[in-house]
Amino acid sequence: MASTSSLALSQALLSRATSHHVSDNRVSLPTFSGLKPTTPRATASSSRRLAGRAPHRSLLPVIRATAAETIDATTEASLVEKSINTIRFLAIDAVEKAKSGHPGLPMGCAPMGHVLYDEVMRYNPKNPYWFNRDRFVLSAGHGCMLHYALLHLAGYDSVKEEDLKNFRQWESRTPGHPENFETPGIEVTTGPLGQGIANAVGLALAERHLAARFNQPDNEIVDHYTYVILGDGCQMEGISHEACSLAGHWGLGKLIALYDDNHISIDGDTDIAFTESVDQRFEALGWHVIWVKNGNTGYDEIHAAIKEAKTVKDKPTLIKVTTTIGFGSPNKANSYSVHGSALGEKEVGATRKNLGWPYEPFHVPDDVKSHWSRHTPEGAALEADWNAKFAEYEKKYPDEAAELRAIITGELPSGWEKALPTYTPESPADATRNLSQQCLNALASVVPGFLGGSADLASSNMTLLKTFGNFQKETPEERNLRFGVREHGMGAICNGIALHSPGLIPYNATFFVFTDYMRAAMRISALSEAGVIYVMTHDSIGLGEDGPTHQPIEHLASFRAMPNILMFRPADGNETAGAYKIAVSKRKRPSVLALSRQKLPQLPGTSVEGVEKGAYTISDNSSGNKPDAILIGTGSELEIAAKAADELRKEGKAVRVVSFVCWELFDEQSDAYKESVLPSDVSARVSIEAGTTFGWEKIVGSKGKAIGIDSFGASAPAGRLYKEFGITVDAVVGAAKELI
Amino acid sequence: MASTSSLALSQALLSRATSHHVSDNRVSLPTFSGLKPTTPRATASSSRRLAGRAPHRSLLPVIRATAAETIDATTEASLVEKSINTIRFLAIDAVEKAKSGHPGLPMGCAPMGHVLYDEVMRYNPKNPYWFNRDRFVLSAGHGCMLHYALLHLAGYDSVKEEDLKNFRQWESRTPGHPENFETPGIEVTTGPLGQGIANAVGLALAERHLAARFNQPDNEIVDHYTYVILGDGCQMEGISHEACSLAGHWGLGKLIALYDDNHISIDGDTDIAFTESVDQRFEALGWHVIWVKNGNTGYDEIHAAIKEAKTVKDKPTLIKVTTTIGFGSPNKANSYSVHGSALGEKEVGATRKNLGWPYEPFHVPDDVKSHWSRHTPEGAALEADWNAKFAEYEKKYPDEAAELRAIITGELPSGWEKALPTYTPESPADATRNLSQQCLNALASVVPGFLGGSADLASSNMTLLKTFGNFQKETPEERNLRFGVREHGMGAICNGIALHSPGLIPYNATFFVFTDYMRAAMRISALSEAGVIYVMTHDSIGLGEDGPTHQPIEHLASFRAMPNILMFRPADGNETAGAYKIAVSKRKRPSVLALSRQKLPQLPGTSVEGVEKGAYTISDNSSGNKPDAILIGTGSELEIAAKAADELRKEGKAVRVVSFVCWELFDEQSDAYKESVLPSDVSARVSIEAGTTFGWEKIVGSKGKAIGIDSFGASAPAGRLYKEFGITVDAVVGAAKELI
Repeated sequence: MASTSSLALSQALLSRATSHHVSDNRVSLPTFSGLKPTTPRATASSSRRLAGRAPHRSLLPVIRATAAETIDATTEASLVEKSINTIRFLAIDAVEKAKSGHPGLPMGCAPMGHVLYDEVMRYNPKNPYWFNRDRFVLSAGHGCMLHYALLHLAGYDSVKEEDLKNFRQWESRTPGHPENFETPGIEVTTGPLGQGIANAVGLALAERHLAARFNQPDNEIVDHYTYVILGDGCQMEGISHEACSLAGHWGLGKLIALYDDNHISIDGDTDIAFTESVDQRFEALGWHVIWVKNGNTGYDEIHAAIKEAKTVKDKPTLIKVTTTIGFGSPNKANSYSVHGSALGEKEVGATRKNLGWPYEPFHVPDDVKSHWSRHTPEGAALEADWNAKFAEYEKKYPDEAAELRAIITGELPSGWEKALPTYTPESPADATRNLSQQCLNALASVVPGFLGGSADLASSNMTLLKTFGNFQKETPEERNLRFGVREHGMGAICNGIALHSPGLIPYNATFFVFTDYMRAAMRISALSEAGVIYVMTHDSIGLGEDGPTHQPIEHLASFRAMPNILMFRPADGNETAGAYKIAVSKRKRPSVLALSRQKLPQLPGTSVEGVEKGAYTISDNSSGNKPDAILIGTGSELEIAAKAADELRKEGKAVRVVSFVCWELFDEQSDAYKESVLPSDVSARVSIEAGTTFGWEKIVGSKGKAIGIDSFGASAPAGRLYKEFGITVDAVVGAAKELI
Repeated sequence: MASTSSLALSQALLSRATSHHVSDNRVSLPTFSGLKPTTPRATASSSRRLAGRAPHRSLLPVIRATAAETIDATTEASLVEKSINTIRFLAIDAVEKAKSGHPGLPMGCAPMGHVLYDEVMRYNPKNPYWFNRDRFVLSAGHGCMLHYALLHLAGYDSVKEEDLKNFRQWESRTPGHPENFETPGIEVTTGPLGQGIANAVGLALAERHLAARFNQPDNEIVDHYTYVILGDGCQMEGISHEACSLAGHWGLGKLIALYDDNHISIDGDTDIAFTESVDQRFEALGWHVIWVKNGNTGYDEIHAAIKEAKTVKDKPTLIKVTTTIGFGSPNKANSYSVHGSALGEKEVGATRKNLGWPYEPFHVPDDVKSHWSRHTPEGAALEADWNAKFAEYEKKYPDEAAELRAIITGELPSGWEKALPTYTPESPADATRNLSQQCLNALASVVPGFLGGSADLASSNMTLLKTFGNFQKETPEERNLRFGVREHGMGAICNGIALHSPGLIPYNATFFVFTDYMRAAMRISALSEAGVIYVMTHDSIGLGEDGPTHQPIEHLASFRAMPNILMFRPADGNETAGAYKIAVSKRKRPSVLALSRQKLPQLPGTSVEGVEKGAYTISDNSSGNKPDAILIGTGSELEIAAKAADELRKEGKAVRVVSFVCWELFDEQSDAYKESVLPSDVSARVSIEAGTTFGWEKIVGSKGKAIGIDSFGASAPAGRLYKEFGITVDAVVGAAKELI
């Protein structure tokens, strides 16, 4: 189903009347006199179209999926305009009722939204999770009323009229920024600028990868576009640069980004801080660039640009659409005042008058409703056709179909976890980053949707999948992703991959300290329930000579404080395997694995089952749950705790050693289990971790002692650093003796 | 002292023999046969130069500052080459001795380093802090042996031969990445990629601002360049895009960045992830772009490119210098294996042979030493001349001179803190973001080096300085910085500003949650002792409808865990003023101020002096330091704690209310003071903060109760959210009663 993208540009342009490059309305605002819903726009395109084409699209018979793009169908111009104004006023009214929100973007981008959801995109409103749907991301997430209005018109059950009326209210499905976990039809959580365009790169990557792996010459079972609307703010953010550079490098031809070029941001005209040539920059990044000069009323131009974009198969496309923020508001359009506040009753009235909108708030005119109503049967037909196609595919390519089905449903192959390696104390000492690589390769061999890579540190993070090649423009079926030195883009791209299909399990990697570069994307993994796996090596001063810029100190604490993310610090092979077992199974919760650069022994007592509890006893010579002391370690310091216990036991003490590999999982255990590991009567507790002690009071209690590092590290060989910073067996033994 | 930048391009090119665009050595490696130190390079340029110019520069008389650029002086080609190879081998030998480090960059960038430090830059090695020095930033910080070798040759006392031999060792002045606080001569801490180029934008901004404010037609007292070497990794990072877009927008003509275009990063050839056109992108960003195709031996071309760059006064310049990483190593050059590991004894030997280097490790040949020795007297002369110039300036412009002196020395005007506003409980309730703006404006009126701005949220963060205009290309004397939506670049630019001169005090602003976008830069503020002030508003669910993407939860904890940064959460006007008082006075420690969007009352008992202690009692009806309960709050929740205390007191309880405005400062108080605020006998402690409870066990103890939010927030009006999340007076009263 290659749809229209095989049309030559000339054909594409011919199939719909266009009037490219009409004068730019942005600088001198139009009088809007031509915008009355009953008056056809006085443009060459609408006149031509009205002269010879079909009337309301809703009068046409329901169109089969293969023709769902409806390129040749046209709709009376007045109805298009009416539909667009419906979108504008739904946004205006919802923001007004909430007395909070961002009306400017929806008013300016309504034409883009209309063209996408009414004319271009393939989706099934009654099944927002249909696998082969086109994806849409509103990267400028503050304009979410645009998206809610579109979902409402298109017939999504998630956004009914009462949802619009509950915009930004407690427990509504229309929160102040788009949240995929609240509102079916929203693909990803946006709002923090630049995240959405990077998510979209991930969504497009996922499509490209799956298409390359599963499509057959006679059956292109994976075939959708990814559309984005992004604004000036997204463009300024570094994350968008990272992701867009990769999209150009990878040649993601089915990624089509519409850039809302409205020249206004919160601080006023973008001229005060943003004067680069975006067009030229995207050309430099390897994108195809189109400029629609009149995004306010040039509906045909927007449509034609998207068609042109589809003809360019080896490059993503940026369509710069010049618009007026708050279009239609006579006194606030083209100013920052319309960006992030309700228009106010008076200006809402003036806008209604200006755009000739006689309706009550939240009203959808019948003809608009009727026009959009076709998307429900059309969408059902699209999905039914695709289901039939999948049935054929399954018949002819049963093995591939089984894999693809697993990726679509998220079902893991039975017994997948048995592929994970196991270790005994006799297994050779190794860095957990190396043990991690064994797990990654084991998982990739059994989990069909497992893929990932590093931000230019594959050989340090040990993240290469040895049986796969590199995902590249010419080899998109491969599974090693090469992100370059772009941590933030990497994280957000992985969010997009994870949210594309439940069975896609992306991992990514850098040095643990550089989570600081990608923290905003990691937080969105946690918030938006994207089960991304973060493989973070060089997790302490144990990395040695690279020094304090590279030595994480506060990072473990900073993730333990973040909701809905699992922070693992495995101590050896079994714990690393345990961490991966949980990370893979938690599809709505991201995991961070902090891994060592340096070799660590395989410790007696560690286990996958232990990791599942978050914290557990690895050795104990006490009885009756009454040890003299409890020594607690994580990761590379668990060995130190174990050695200290040996010392103390030689002196006749009853000592328990506890691995605290994942605080969040321990928090979720029963009180009885917690008491069995950390009996409340035992206050002689010593923790050791080569990082900040911040937060450890919770575990060791007011009378316990946390050994750690509360300053920055230093540049020196690792052994020296451990000694100088007091992360030693002696320190643990000494502290324990003071407490016993 | 406009130096050579007023030369026309043609003159600049004529003044030194050049051979632009010789064939690119990168693709097919040279045989190095022409590189023997005694053989003049077989290039047109060197032949021409040798034919008619002066011999060793060291034979020339010491040159006065006004001629210190020494454009017309030339040095025998063999000596240039020998100097460059000295740099290469100092790096090779130091990495080899440490068995750790990055030899590849210094080997490839030695020619750039030589041209900069021997031929172009103006500095005084015996006073690395001389105000008017040219700044140099090695953004690709892993190649720090390049910089150490240059500082060593140039005569800086911070890098003696023993320092080179102690590369990457405990307490050495030559750590594994450049640290400004360890090594005089290093301007900023780099290593995390992209930070350095952004710091350099800040350094160049500082120069442009100070020059615009203080230079007079007859006395250009501020006048230096900022040079950077950055690599492919820096180019890929989003932060560099943000900062470079701003540098282009601001037209920072005295920023000259040399891009080490070596096509190799850790994962191998950059082709696997980085195929954009960097040249075209920088042109799009408004930079002047020059390509030196042969960066390995094209010394004249590098010099000429810098001269050309100086003629372009309204744009920063990117000089793309195509080099071979590990140049000179016969078996490892042009491969990732030379990037981050010692060459190994065998390859060091082969490289010595290949480059004709007969010397022992760490040896600086006498003629090279002698050649570089002139920088000590020259540098002294430069500074002496400038001092004389400043004396003249001071005579003629005493007021301006006093301000400039304060900026140079960092001395604050006496009584500056009296400008900060004070409040009584009768003062109107207000959001701390508004109270913050009063402080910012008060400070800007008395502190000459106070300047800053927001990442496109000035009207939300309330950060505009009302008596100043915008720092822009045409108005660089102004103090409102407009960063656009570029948080990460903003933070790093402010680091550069702060480290330019002790008296420059930059602040920057965004929503508190978006510290996630700039955390890597904030960490470097803390590590590199840059006293940047972070004005972070919308600090909790109190922001309401924007929802969980915008509501910080874990952020307070994440900064409390970070070393050397002060995390303030003021509750009202007095506490906001107190936070600013400390933030301004701490010039080696950054401060973060978490401020409310919503109105807060001016509470009885709050004080500037209290803030200085970090935590203090604001009200207490107990006696003998034995309250029944201690209620602890921060920021907007201090009011809730105070109200809860009122309720409990009505019931006859003796209750203390403590403001915990800055944990770090409290940690630094005496035990006696701590005991006076939190008596160890009182275990009935309740804390309330609209953020994670993570870390609060330290304050409330094992028997206390921390009230907070350990999940993500939600989109709804703020009042509703406080109720739904249980951040209420009732919750505090209830918790306290359970404990009393």
